Order: sequence, then structure tokens, then C-alpha cells
Amino acid sequence: MSASFTIALDAMGGDNAPAIVVKGADLARRRFPNIRFRMFGDEARILPLIKRRKRLREITEIMHTDDVISSEMTVSVAIRKGRQSSMQLAINAVRDGDAEGVVSAGNTGALMAMAKLSLRTLPGIHRPAIAAILPSIRGESVMLDLGANVECDAENLVQFAIMGDVFARTVLGTVNPSCGLLNVGSEEMKGHAEIQQAAAYLRQMTGTFNFHGFVEGDDIAAGTTDVVVSDGFTGNIALKTTEGTARLIKEFLGDAFRSSLSARLGYIFARRGLRKMRDRIDPRRYNGAVFLGLNGIAVKSHGGTDAFGFANAIGVAIDMAANGFNQKITDGLEAFGELDQGPAEAAAS
Amino acid sequence: MSASFTIALDAMGGDNAPAIVVKGADLARRRFPNIRFRMFGDEARILPLIKRRKRLREITEIMHTDDVISSEMTVSVAIRKGRQSSMQLAINAVRDGDAEGVVSAGNTGALMAMAKLSLRTLPGIHRPAIAAILPSIRGESVMLDLGANVECDAENLVQFAIMGDVFARTVLGTVNPSCGLLNVGSEEMKGHAEIQQAAAYLRQMTGTFNFHGFVEGDDIAAGTTDVVVSDGFTGNIALKTTEGTARLIKEFLGDAFRSSLSARLGYIFARRGLRKMRDRIDPRRYNGAVFLGLNGIAVKSHGGTDAFGFANAIGVAIDMAANGFNQKITDGLEAFGELDQGPAEAAAS
Repeated sequence: MSASFTIALDAMGGDNAPAIVVKGADLARRRFPNIRFRMFGDEARILPLIKRRKRLREITEIMHTDDVISSEMTVSVAIRKGRQSSMQLAINAVRDGDAEGVVSAGNTGALMAMAKLSLRTLPGIHRPAIAAILPSIRGESVMLDLGANVECDAENLVQFAIMGDVFARTVLGTVNPSCGLLNVGSEEMKGHAEIQQAAAYLRQMTGTFNFHGFVEGDDIAAGTTDVVVSDGFTGNIALKTTEGTARLIKEFLGDAFRSSLSARLGYIFARRGLRKMRDRIDPRRYNGAVFLGLNGIAVKSHGGTDAFGFANAIGVAIDMAANGFNQKITDGLEAFGELDQGPAEAAAS
Repeated sequence: MSASFTIALDAMGGDNAPAIVVKGADLARRRFPNIRFRMFGDEARILPLIKRRKRLREITEIMHTDDVISSEMTVSVAIRKGRQSSMQLAINAVRDGDAEGVVSAGNTGALMAMAKLSLRTLPGIHRPAIAAILPSIRGESVMLDLGANVECDAENLVQFAIMGDVFARTVLGTVNPSCGLLNVGSEEMKGHAEIQQAAAYLRQMTGTFNFHGFVEGDDIAAGTTDVVVSDGFTGNIALKTTEGTARLIKEFLGDAFRSSLSARLGYIFARRGLRKMRDRIDPRRYNGAVFLGLNGIAVKSHGGTDAFGFANAIGVAIDMAANGFNQKITDGLEAFGELDQGPAEAAAS
């Protein structure tokens, strides 16, 4: 990567801000040599943290502001009162062309709403979506929407499919990613009208688009397709169900290793292997929910992440910027030229 | 349990029928001394299996039929051509009062459709639902609907809540079970109109009904509530996502224990503890998806289960029969006397 990229950081967002933001930026700097940062937040708190990090200091411009969006703030309050907040100013840097992307570990709802209002959607995109990378038995896959849109029509789902396709190519480097629509069965007649229409439309796209068909809940972790598309209600619940199940098994596994002296000993012998396994499903590796479909790159880091996780979220923003993510979405929409016709008509034709 | 119960068994349903059906019945017999069976299927295949099991033979009446519903059959074909099938005849035994419940490991869609047509819904119930017991960090919880109804209105969700409540009391013995509505956030304003209306209605029921409010995907495994209610689309995807995630972690765990000699040794030391853990999430323990809201007890065993799993499915049917499950649902609906008014009006009032 020879081009230089500037990333705007909301230094005050997240549980351990600004410390993990500064540390995460320093980690990302080592991975991406041509990166520059604009860090928005309380200079008095950021400066002491950055002082000892000479290399980071050289590539970072601190933009002072007193205002912060708290995690408890409602979206409407955040928008009304947060005009000078570190989050809003970081987003504005992308809008104004001063940064290629923004990363925040702050209030998700506020970030989504502010980014939507300031950056606006890409031409042709009706609704932005939240996407994330998830581990699967076959590697990694992309899932969207994870909660931006509680109700979706067929056209929304088709646009999510296109955005997910571009995201898999751009960020994961997947060649010709396959795409599945999340449903209650893989048979063609399953599911409600919106998903039926979306499938009918995507089926016509064979050649330009690798539509697998319907997938079920267990296909997400199986990695049956590279991209899994659903409405935001179902996607959000599926994502959180995954997290809950992983936590349940972790808990039970802990109990198992504590159940006897022999089991404790077993844990010690198996520790290295188990650590490798933990790394494979490490939520920090999959940190960074991305708002797709906006006229600018915005990545949400998990609020409770550490520097490693935050650096990964920065990495996602850079991958998207470096690979011309938004331009590719626009191209993808054009390739689906008939989209204006709408999936309903496509299904009927 | 002093009363005697007769359970109708579809001896030909499932991957390993009739062998596991006969073995499962024999296991259940030991657990429930007053049980009797009506076994529907191919006598020539059932008899040799049952011959050596003297005690089982004494309490079992074999009802011969040649016809079988295969797992590949569509629902419409099954209904048209399956009138003399082991599945249909077993259901008819419940309808005709010859058995207190029916258990089948066969074609789910066919079983649901046939049971609905033959048994009909309980008075006042608009839509039957599929429920199952799931493991959680706090013990066990009940989840419904798992796929019978792809689209649900507020009144359906309220009825699912009542049925789930009675199921938790009856089958799990939970005192005053708490109930949560699955949603994308726990705040009151989250989610779509149907779920908002259902919540408004259930909130009025404090005193008679322990409504917790909204729960999220990770609350299922956390056991935040004893009952989790959702539409069948979301519930089905959440359930299968759980299964997929568990399989992913099992796979990764296997890799971890195979990753080195030391890890293999660790596995040997920890084996007993790990086995106990596996038992806690053993799908066979949670075998038996139940059709709630029908005028008769119908339990679907997993098609690929073994005798232990099938016996558990029989156990669920007996628990429901012994505790007057359907009568309690009718009582529960009456306690919600205002239900006729409909949740929409309740929300407005």
C-alpha cells in the first residue's frame, strides 16, 4: 500500500477511552506504514498518552473538543447536543474530505444516526446496513444487516447482498464470494414475501453475482456462503445468539476444567492448543462493525474492546479505503442496472 | 405418577426407525412404570425387535400399517397419500381418545400439518407453535415459536407467551416462570409494531403473568428468562444459529486437542470433565420439539436421534399429559379474559 490514508478517530468513545484509542492507533501504525490520524477529544487527556509514543505523535493531529457522547445518551439527545462532540467532529472530518474513514468505539446508535445524517447514503442506496466479519468452520464470512434496519423490503435485501459481496471482496479478499439469504429453510418456497422476492431477483443475476440461495441459521457458522444477508431484526438476533452460545460453552468448558484435579491438569497440558482455539474465535479479531452504504467509511469498534481490537477496527477502515470500497459499491449497483425496475417486477418477469 | 398413560408411537418415523423407536420406548417404560404404547407401523419389522423385550411387549399394542411418510415427502403429498400412514394413524389415536399423546421422529412438516388437521387447535388458540427446551447458563429454558409461523401478529405472540408459561410450569416444573420477548434491544421502544403491541399487552398482566420485557439473542443462552417468545422465523434462525455455533466450537475444540502431543495428553486428563460438559449440552437431552396449542399432545423427536433421545421425547409427552397441559392452557387463556379485546386495543387503553 503506497498511498497515504488519514483516519479520523473518536478518541473519547468506548469504555476505556482515550487510552485504548491511543494504544490501538499505535498498533495500527505499525501495520500500516502510510497511515495518519486525526484524533478528536480532550487534548489534556490525549497528550500525556501520546507523548511517549514518538512515532504515533508524528502522524497524529489532535483536534481538541470538550464534548463527548456518552454510551447512555439516546440518539435524539446525541444529535441535538453533540454537534461539537468528538464523535460528530470525527465524522465531519470524513464528510469534509479531511479523512478517508472514521473509527469510534462509542454509542452505536448515535454513531449510526450521526454518520447517516452527515455522510448521507451512497447514490442509489436506500438504507445503510451494519456488517461484520464472523468466524466460520471454513474461515471467515460477512454478515449483514446486524440491526440498522428492523424491517426490510426485497430491494433493501438485494442492496445488502451487493454491499456484502463488495465487502467480502474488498476486506476479506474473497474471489467471487457466494451469497446466501438467511431463511427458515433452504427450499425455494420457504420464508416470507420479501425474502422470496429478493431471492427471485438475485437468482436472475447468475453470471454477475454468485447467489447460492437460501441458507439457515446453522449455515452462518458452517460457512456455507461467504456472505449471509438478512433483515436487521433477524441478523441482530442471530449475531447475539452466536455470542450467547459461545459464552455458554465457554462457561461450561471452564466448569469442566475445574471439575477435578485431573481435569485441571489436563487444562495445563492442553493450554497452548486451547489458546490457539480461543484466538480463532477471539471477538477482538472480529472487532469492527461497519456501516455500509454511506458516502464515507465509518467503522464501529466494540465499546469494551482493547487496543488490539481497536487496531483491527482501524484496519477494516483502511482496507475499505485502500480498496475503493464505496466506488465498488457504486459500480456494483450499476452492474445491477435493472435494479430501478425493482425486485418485485424482476420476480414477475 | 399413579395414572396410566397411553402414548401413540409412529414406529416408522426417523432415520433409524423402527429400531430406535422400540428401544426408546423400552427406555421410557423403565422411567414411567404406568405407561402403555400403541405402536403404528410395519408389524413384520417391529415384532422381531420387540420380541426379546418381554416387559415392553406386555404394554405395547402393535397396530400394523404398510404406509410410511418419508422424510422427503412434501406436506401436500403426505396429507393426500398418507391417510393410512403410521404417522397419521398415530395422530388419529390421540384424536380418537385412544392415546394421551403421539411421538414421531418423522417428517416435521407433515407431522405438524397432519396434527393440526386431525387434532385442531385448542379453543381460543389461533396458531399452534413449536416449542423446545434449551440449555442455559442458569439451567433450562423454553423457547417458541421455532418455525411453525413465519409471520406472527401481536395476539399470536401473546398466546405463545401463555403457552410457553404453561409449558415451563408443566414440563420443567418452573414456579412463576419469567417470560421475555425476543427483540433487538431491551429498551421499551425497540422492535417492530407487532412486538411492541404484544409487549404492551403482556405488561398489563403483571400479577397474573411474570413478563420480564424484551430480551436479546444472547439472553437465550444466558437464561435471563425461563421462557423466550418470538415469531417462528426469528426463533427458527436463532435455534439453528445456536446449533451451528455449538458445532463450530466443538470443531475448533477438537482441533485444539489434536494440535500437539501435550494437548492430546491434556484431553485424556480432562476427558471425564469434558464428558460431563458434553452431557450438559447433549442435544439428545433436549430432544422433543413440541407442538403447542393443539387439541392433543404431539411431540416431534429429532429424526437422527438415538433411543435415549427418543425416550426423552416420550418423557416430554408424558409430562404434558400427566400435568394436564392442555387444560392449563385453556385456563391460562381464560385468565387472560381480555384477550378477545385483542392486544392492539389493550395497548391503546
